[in-house]
Amino acid sequence: MEFNLAQSIEILERTPGTLRTLLKDVSTGWAQGTEGPDTFSPFDNIGHLIDGEETDWMPRARMILAQGQNRRFEPYDRFRHKARNASRTLDSLLEEFARLRAENLQTLRSWNLPESQLKLRGEHPGLGPVTLRQLLAAWVVHDLGHIAQVARVMAKQYRAEVGPWVPYLPVLTDHEVPRS
Amino acid sequence: MEFNLAQSIEILERTPGTLRTLLKDVSTGWAQGTEGPDTFSPFDNIGHLIDGEETDWMPRARMILAQGQNRRFEPYDRFRHKARNASRTLDSLLEEFARLRAENLQTLRSWNLPESQLKLRGEHPGLGPVTLRQLLAAWVVHDLGHIAQVARVMAKQYRAEVGPWVPYLPVLTDHEVPRS
Repeated sequence: MEFNLAQSIEILERTPGTLRTLLKDVSTGWAQGTEGPDTFSPFDNIGHLIDGEETDWMPRARMILAQGQNRRFEPYDRFRHKARNASRTLDSLLEEFARLRAENLQTLRSWNLPESQLKLRGEHPGLGPVTLRQLLAAWVVHDLGHIAQVARVMAKQYRAEVGPWVPYLPVLTDHEVPRS
Repeated sequence: MEFNLAQSIEILERTPGTLRTLLKDVSTGWAQGTEGPDTFSPFDNIGHLIDGEETDWMPRARMILAQGQNRRFEPYDRFRHKARNASRTLDSLLEEFARLRAENLQTLRSWNLPESQLKLRGEHPGLGPVTLRQLLAAWVVHDLGHIAQVARVMAKQYRAEVGPWVPYLPVLTDHEVPRS
């Protein structure tokens, strides 16, 4: 697929509801299980997505659109959510993510971005020059990656329970050495 | 996590809604994209899950519970859905999956399975002896694996659009040689 703003928003607007449908009111074992030390539980994934709404995607889009002298993005803190959400419930994070995402999409839609603006560039601190179009595409892929991660992490909680089925269930052996 | 029937049903009952929230009314590019030849699109994943409801999990559970002379499961046809659903819409498949799953869970709940029945065995044509408990755990993992697969396949449709972001988005390089 080629990048298309409306088709990108299709996914961005579905992510909070998808994760809420999967995770609302689930048992603690499903919500808090991980793939190993320093990996994200489903709870952590929602916290990380909230961080993205507050500090990553739209702040970076605004910086690109401003085309000021400094177009270098702030580095993204992948562990901000750990301290931020220590006393929170999963359900309250799911609601907060949905609210932040809805606000951000309202702003994104209001910009009515033309092709000329999608070509504007910012400077990623690790990756170098990136266009607004690439940033928005990465936002979509990032969402889908975290939906996949949440489902995978949950699946692995039952790895010892499926007996001989392991080789028929490849999700159980994805990311044996977790990359995220 | 140890296997627990109620916690397994928590996931089994969420899967149709999760996939409907993600996929209902999405553009054809998201619904029909694949990871390469002979791999499943999101549309194919829903068809495959429907096949599971009609021919796999509950028929096998019934065979185990019957403890008849033949306890060997019918081989599962991973491509039954291809011909079955050639003229169907994704939305109608999402509705059908939700209906079949709800019926199956009503039956599963009605059995009130005690520990003694969860230990009963059947014969998997490829894997050998398996317990009802392992079958039900595999059903849960299979659901979550297909949620992860759907999200991954969708993410990959934008692989060429994210520019230098690829190494920061591991979902794009998962299953470079598709296993399912």
